[in-house]
Amino acid sequence: MQQLPKQQLYTFCRPPSVSASSFVSRYPQQHLCPGCVFMPRSLLSTVSLSLHLRKKAKMLQHPVPRTQSRQASTKIGADKGAKVLNLSTVNQAVVDCEYAVRGELAIRAEVLRQQLATAQPRSLPFERIISCNIGNPQQLEQRPITFFRQVTSLVEYPELLDDKNISLTRQLFATDAIERAKSLLQAMGGSVGAYSHSQGIPLVRENVAKFIEERDGYPSDPNDIFLTAGASPGVQTVLQTLIANNQVGIMIPVPQYPLYTASIALFKGNAVPYYLNEENTWGLSVEELGRSIAAAREEGLDVRALCVINPGNPTGGCLTVDNMRDVIDFCHREKLVLLADEVYQKNIYLPQDFPFHSFKKVLKSMGPAYGSVELISFHSVSKGVVGECGRRGGYFECTSIDPQVKELFYKIASISLCPPTQGQLMVDLMVNPPRQGDASYDLYKQETDSIYESLRSRASRLADAFNRLEGVSCQPAQGAMYLFPQILLPTKAIEAARTAGQEPDVMYCMELLNATGVCVVPGSGFHQKEGTWHFRSTFLPPENQMENFIQRISEFHQEFMDRYR
Amino acid sequence: MQQLPKQQLYTFCRPPSVSASSFVSRYPQQHLCPGCVFMPRSLLSTVSLSLHLRKKAKMLQHPVPRTQSRQASTKIGADKGAKVLNLSTVNQAVVDCEYAVRGELAIRAEVLRQQLATAQPRSLPFERIISCNIGNPQQLEQRPITFFRQVTSLVEYPELLDDKNISLTRQLFATDAIERAKSLLQAMGGSVGAYSHSQGIPLVRENVAKFIEERDGYPSDPNDIFLTAGASPGVQTVLQTLIANNQVGIMIPVPQYPLYTASIALFKGNAVPYYLNEENTWGLSVEELGRSIAAAREEGLDVRALCVINPGNPTGGCLTVDNMRDVIDFCHREKLVLLADEVYQKNIYLPQDFPFHSFKKVLKSMGPAYGSVELISFHSVSKGVVGECGRRGGYFECTSIDPQVKELFYKIASISLCPPTQGQLMVDLMVNPPRQGDASYDLYKQETDSIYESLRSRASRLADAFNRLEGVSCQPAQGAMYLFPQILLPTKAIEAARTAGQEPDVMYCMELLNATGVCVVPGSGFHQKEGTWHFRSTFLPPENQMENFIQRISEFHQEFMDRYR
Repeated sequence: MQQLPKQQLYTFCRPPSVSASSFVSRYPQQHLCPGCVFMPRSLLSTVSLSLHLRKKAKMLQHPVPRTQSRQASTKIGADKGAKVLNLSTVNQAVVDCEYAVRGELAIRAEVLRQQLATAQPRSLPFERIISCNIGNPQQLEQRPITFFRQVTSLVEYPELLDDKNISLTRQLFATDAIERAKSLLQAMGGSVGAYSHSQGIPLVRENVAKFIEERDGYPSDPNDIFLTAGASPGVQTVLQTLIANNQVGIMIPVPQYPLYTASIALFKGNAVPYYLNEENTWGLSVEELGRSIAAAREEGLDVRALCVINPGNPTGGCLTVDNMRDVIDFCHREKLVLLADEVYQKNIYLPQDFPFHSFKKVLKSMGPAYGSVELISFHSVSKGVVGECGRRGGYFECTSIDPQVKELFYKIASISLCPPTQGQLMVDLMVNPPRQGDASYDLYKQETDSIYESLRSRASRLADAFNRLEGVSCQPAQGAMYLFPQILLPTKAIEAARTAGQEPDVMYCMELLNATGVCVVPGSGFHQKEGTWHFRSTFLPPENQMENFIQRISEFHQEFMDRYR
Repeated sequence: MQQLPKQQLYTFCRPPSVSASSFVSRYPQQHLCPGCVFMPRSLLSTVSLSLHLRKKAKMLQHPVPRTQSRQASTKIGADKGAKVLNLSTVNQAVVDCEYAVRGELAIRAEVLRQQLATAQPRSLPFERIISCNIGNPQQLEQRPITFFRQVTSLVEYPELLDDKNISLTRQLFATDAIERAKSLLQAMGGSVGAYSHSQGIPLVRENVAKFIEERDGYPSDPNDIFLTAGASPGVQTVLQTLIANNQVGIMIPVPQYPLYTASIALFKGNAVPYYLNEENTWGLSVEELGRSIAAAREEGLDVRALCVINPGNPTGGCLTVDNMRDVIDFCHREKLVLLADEVYQKNIYLPQDFPFHSFKKVLKSMGPAYGSVELISFHSVSKGVVGECGRRGGYFECTSIDPQVKELFYKIASISLCPPTQGQLMVDLMVNPPRQGDASYDLYKQETDSIYESLRSRASRLADAFNRLEGVSCQPAQGAMYLFPQILLPTKAIEAARTAGQEPDVMYCMELLNATGVCVVPGSGFHQKEGTWHFRSTFLPPENQMENFIQRISEFHQEFMDRYR
């Protein structure tokens, strides 16, 4: 294979602020090998060039040279027939970022789903796709909470509250749902179709602040709350503000939720990985934080923030209070903004051993000595027992954030005008559900208890099932909606994957999908320790499908292992 | 006043790719004057430093020197007590971008609204705030369309469709609304609370494509449609992809909708202004496009796209087919991607003289010679007679866009998971409303006709009223939801504004707000020809408030003119 000069190769993936030598030490998987550059273009008609180069680069374990994808980027029209907008002319940060949760596996699953739905229903060895790639409970038959939906339904069609309709309406809707709908309509100026305040409906922010106060026992200010279209755009707003230049580093856990690497790449910052300890139920050690920040600083990065996902995604791990204190102390010492992704705060399955504590509460409990620690905490309506992903609702709370910076968050929010109102309403309902004595309370309690118990039981059933598979070890889910089992892949399987130009875990997951219709996400999408292979699966398939689901996976797994033994 | 060295001053506002001399010629308003740099920090406690410096810079007509806001940006902790995140450490693109529609006027209006609502209801010379700063019809009593809301209400609470409830439901909801809700629920996999396909629910995209085919008479492919959370995030996705580096220029009309300048600034590109001709009802001339692109290229910019807003915002101007052909020919010749913001396509008030034609239709009518022209067209549920802003729904259609680039749009969409489902449903309802013969058709027609006629009548009443004011001239609204009158401000008023550190039109609008409770947006927020002053007002106040609204403005205006005569 031809060798390109070292310098040329490293310009592609390496951030300008990182020296070639430290880049190699940080990404030991990526060695020099220019093979794919000489791949004929004609072979690339059906897949994106970017995707191909990336896969090829991974297979050959080296970064893609800049020549192909970037050199032309400032000059348009060199190729007479080329589009103005093409892969070589566009923002390369968009080309380079990756989002595996909805990546090639999800795209393939969509193709198979359409095949089942239309052309050839019997052409596949399974009858339906089971999407375990994404925490999307209501797609997998989790029922919405009745009180919530009664309120949102009434708000959509306020004529139901008119005198001429109200007696019929009272036969269909609970009295407290009717009252809540009225108060929310009033708070929105009468219509869910009007833009709200860019930071979110004031009443909803007040209710969020009350919820936080009740949860933590410390004050919360509605003006520090920003309602968002799910947690993701909130995280993106904060990262966009934090990443002042291409030297800025943001510490993220590995494995991580790909929102973080994707957004950091889009905003042209640097992800600074710290590794969670799989053997210790994916625990977070401050020693590892120290190693990580020292390595990043040695490379000249200006590390400004630390992201923690608690409960963990994809790991399901939950932090202890002591551990959280150490993290806060680390941020204080190192002058880091702490970004706390707490969207799974209600998905706690071992509440005796690992109850949820918010970073806000732990920080406040540490007293004035830590008063300067800047904290931004994220929450969402998409998870918990609510699972209302599609309407896009969430919030973040700012603690000790400079008021002028909050003005910037407001400005970014205002450019998108406002978060979706139906998402905002769901935030209100989540933080202010029926209370004991309310007409809907008993049903609400029964529904939420049942969803919670079912999640907890499915988590442990699936973890047990994974642990029974040959060469698979799976930590128990302390929280969240996922399991992240490790697979010891046979050498032959790894070799076969390399030959096919795939990551071994991608090959495993793709074969699983093609054989069973089960769609999970390869561990490489979340990053993982070199030489280890995982996948992330939600435990959301409905209880009555669980046995069948486990059986499909087990049969496939045994066949796969036998084939590559 | 002390003079700073020229070089230092120009580093602030000037993009690195633009020479100092061409910067001066492009922004003739901005001359050297360093006064504000020496403003004591103690005076800045209540306003953001950034806002102050910007206002001050505008008053003194010079760019803010880099020293204050940028020099510290790579070094944290120089000031021991400083936050990690502060105005000097954050992404300066976020600090610099401006979004006037929800800027200082809107913030002041919110303060006054709260004052009216709580503390001192009689403390102000008016009883309510009238928000004409933003096209938000349902905030100003425009009623939603019954059929649309019946469907969205049923989708929120599908138990209304269960056997046990259906007979009551049929007494409250139209039969076609019930049928539509069922088919949409099925298309979403049963729940509005599930994430959809990141590009949007396939059925909805099919309906959008049918709508476009019916409108234009040319084919449309659902795979070229991307549903979005309103038009704004669609525009941002495309600009983020287009702006490959800080040399890229995007042509925008002046006056423009501030989404464009704000987003281009956030993505660190360069807005390349072309001026609309106010005397010719805000017409667009290809000669001006030629001047604009030549000037930008002379400055070394790589101009890649042309944005057109048709019907215009804030101008209300509508393009003729001949004019549109010239624009397309210009894009073809100059190799520019055409971005067509067509969110006001249903807000056409002189349909005989200025009917709406989509750029897609005109482009397709020009035949294969123009087949290579890359076009992206935006639409929204927030405008038209629908006015469902708050739920955030919209779409864009790609014409002749490289498939690999569409994959990038998909990837960006997938990082935010999916557009809000209630926004997607409203797109479906907008493009596929009741047809003649359907149970809801008569009511739908009556409601939409009445909203349309009312908008048209309010547009002309308000334009007439503005034209009766001393020193005010206002072009008629051919389309959209706004008027953009020009005010010949007395010299004394301009001087008073400068002394107060304000743009003269900002001062006018702020005084209008404080005196009458009417909130409009100063012309400077949209950019305007040097030495001219405008404001943008929606014509959305309800008919029964129109007389009072006009009277308030007229009285204020006369008093203002008398005071500064």
